[in-house]
Amino acid sequence: LMIPSAISIEKETPETHRPSTFLRESDDVLTTLSSSSSSVRARFEKMIRDAQDTVCEAIEAVDGGAHFKEDVWSRPGGGGGISRVLQDGAVWEKAGVNVSVVYGVMPPEAYRAAKASADDQIKPGPVPFFAAGISSVLHPKNPFAPTLHFNYRYFETDAPKDAPGAPRQWWFGGGTDLTPAYIFEEDVKHFHLAQKSTCDKFDPTFYARFKKWCDDYFYIKHRGERRGLGGIFFDDLNDYDQEMLLSFATECANSVVPAYIPIIQKRKDMPFTDQHKAWQQLRRGRYVEFNLVYDRGTTFGLKTGGRIESILVSLPLTARWEYDHQPEEGSEEWKLLDACINPREWI
Amino acid sequence: LMIPSAISIEKETPETHRPSTFLRESDDVLTTLSSSSSSVRARFEKMIRDAQDTVCEAIEAVDGGAHFKEDVWSRPGGGGGISRVLQDGAVWEKAGVNVSVVYGVMPPEAYRAAKASADDQIKPGPVPFFAAGISSVLHPKNPFAPTLHFNYRYFETDAPKDAPGAPRQWWFGGGTDLTPAYIFEEDVKHFHLAQKSTCDKFDPTFYARFKKWCDDYFYIKHRGERRGLGGIFFDDLNDYDQEMLLSFATECANSVVPAYIPIIQKRKDMPFTDQHKAWQQLRRGRYVEFNLVYDRGTTFGLKTGGRIESILVSLPLTARWEYDHQPEEGSEEWKLLDACINPREWI
Repeated sequence: LMIPSAISIEKETPETHRPSTFLRESDDVLTTLSSSSSSVRARFEKMIRDAQDTVCEAIEAVDGGAHFKEDVWSRPGGGGGISRVLQDGAVWEKAGVNVSVVYGVMPPEAYRAAKASADDQIKPGPVPFFAAGISSVLHPKNPFAPTLHFNYRYFETDAPKDAPGAPRQWWFGGGTDLTPAYIFEEDVKHFHLAQKSTCDKFDPTFYARFKKWCDDYFYIKHRGERRGLGGIFFDDLNDYDQEMLLSFATECANSVVPAYIPIIQKRKDMPFTDQHKAWQQLRRGRYVEFNLVYDRGTTFGLKTGGRIESILVSLPLTARWEYDHQPEEGSEEWKLLDACINPREWI
Repeated sequence: LMIPSAISIEKETPETHRPSTFLRESDDVLTTLSSSSSSVRARFEKMIRDAQDTVCEAIEAVDGGAHFKEDVWSRPGGGGGISRVLQDGAVWEKAGVNVSVVYGVMPPEAYRAAKASADDQIKPGPVPFFAAGISSVLHPKNPFAPTLHFNYRYFETDAPKDAPGAPRQWWFGGGTDLTPAYIFEEDVKHFHLAQKSTCDKFDPTFYARFKKWCDDYFYIKHRGERRGLGGIFFDDLNDYDQEMLLSFATECANSVVPAYIPIIQKRKDMPFTDQHKAWQQLRRGRYVEFNLVYDRGTTFGLKTGGRIESILVSLPLTARWEYDHQPEEGSEEWKLLDACINPREWI
């Protein structure tokens, strides 16, 4: 999300009920030019809220034990969110699925299109923006069951009033990626195939491009390793038809359950040792390192005054750091590490 | 440490033996003008290596079980370090005590004195610098025994050859701070009194100033809380006599054992419950958040290619993140949190 750190958003207020929409009244209107009957903002919000319901239902059904706890909040100037967290379940140690809608104002220097198209003389004022997204991290207990992360988001600025000709800007971002502590080839293949088949419905170049983008993005630079075994990732995507990208993001969100749940079904009850658990915990430590040091969503959220508990729900319940831990060459732990250092093609 | 992120240092090489010094030969010489017989660089290196020995001996003696594992390394252009880590001891879960000596080159924009004194015409080239420090984090197992961190460092640039009149720069930085999961007033008082009595030997203003600096520095902004209960912290200190500051840093390092070890002796065998342990683990999570998001030494080290395992030895063996955890008002956990939110005067 290409938002500068100079902006900040208003403090959230807890709400007792979910509103039907977090959009400002002025936003939630029929548009005349768009191909559908309501604005992209409105349809994107509906999509992420539906996806939140679907994913949470699937998780609860498989977990069998725990239920999601819901927190709803709003912000004075419009926007708000719903956090759902399942903690200490039978299958998942910690599962968070959040949606949020943010209205904010960004400094003019951040509005790139205006800079590019307008004369140096024309200095637009602060540019209002809208952002909405779903974000989720699912950390299972069993060390053979992988962590899943997905996030889909839509961003739009208003057209700056005082820079004539400068356009409204919009883009989509997101991705789904898998972070196992142990490799089961069939699982990783299944997961990547699901991403590819979703991508292929829209553009034959998407999977290869977004798979590489994912490998590049989830890179823990100081370790020289990726966080996990990848998936797809894209950001600032606006050079395609807007309706097509909305459908693409929707399809990506819809593919989360079929891509992930079958893997969990197979792994959730596998017997494991303390050593397996300790290795999972070390990999969870790497997860923490990536999220706190590199993840743009997290670092952006921490700096701009987002809802801290919602942002940091991505962190695992427990994590571990051993000094200078080196898995034995050829071991299962070493194989995972090797695939994090040298990303593979899975299909 | 006011070092810009543009610099980077060379990759380290493991060594089988501790050298008598990590200084370049050209550095390790008698100086004629300094008040003592050898350079500040040489005396600072000796001080931190002695302090490393003293602290490690004291830790091993109290732990009774485990021993420090030592890693020695050097860098091609001069410099190197010694990491000592005790893991899974009887008393300490993880204890790291590192010394390092770094030679590097910083971009001219970072050399502030040259900019201030020289004409705009005179553009100095890259400025060689020297930095040495001791850094330590000690995480005990018992939730009633506090974590200790201390770090003392000395920084020096060469006088830029191509900016006539621009001086050599130097400064000292460091501090010692205490991070308990539970407050024992007598422990915190003892710790702060030890810091104050060290400070008072040098300047009556030091303790109050460095105590506040510590509260300000170890601030987890996104939480609105400090990492722990403070101590002393200072940085960029050069507006005092250089010999005085060298003595001050030495005295600070020497006070680590008497300030900390008596507290550990009292707490290491106290009985505790799973609930106490879980709260300690949550506070360890905050420790991780501070170190990965805000700590200048850590973020600088990760970006410049320092020795990763030495830098991240500061992270606890295990940590925990619960969604939206709120200690009950008036509880012992709440009292600790309150003191992290509203720093107190302990003496």
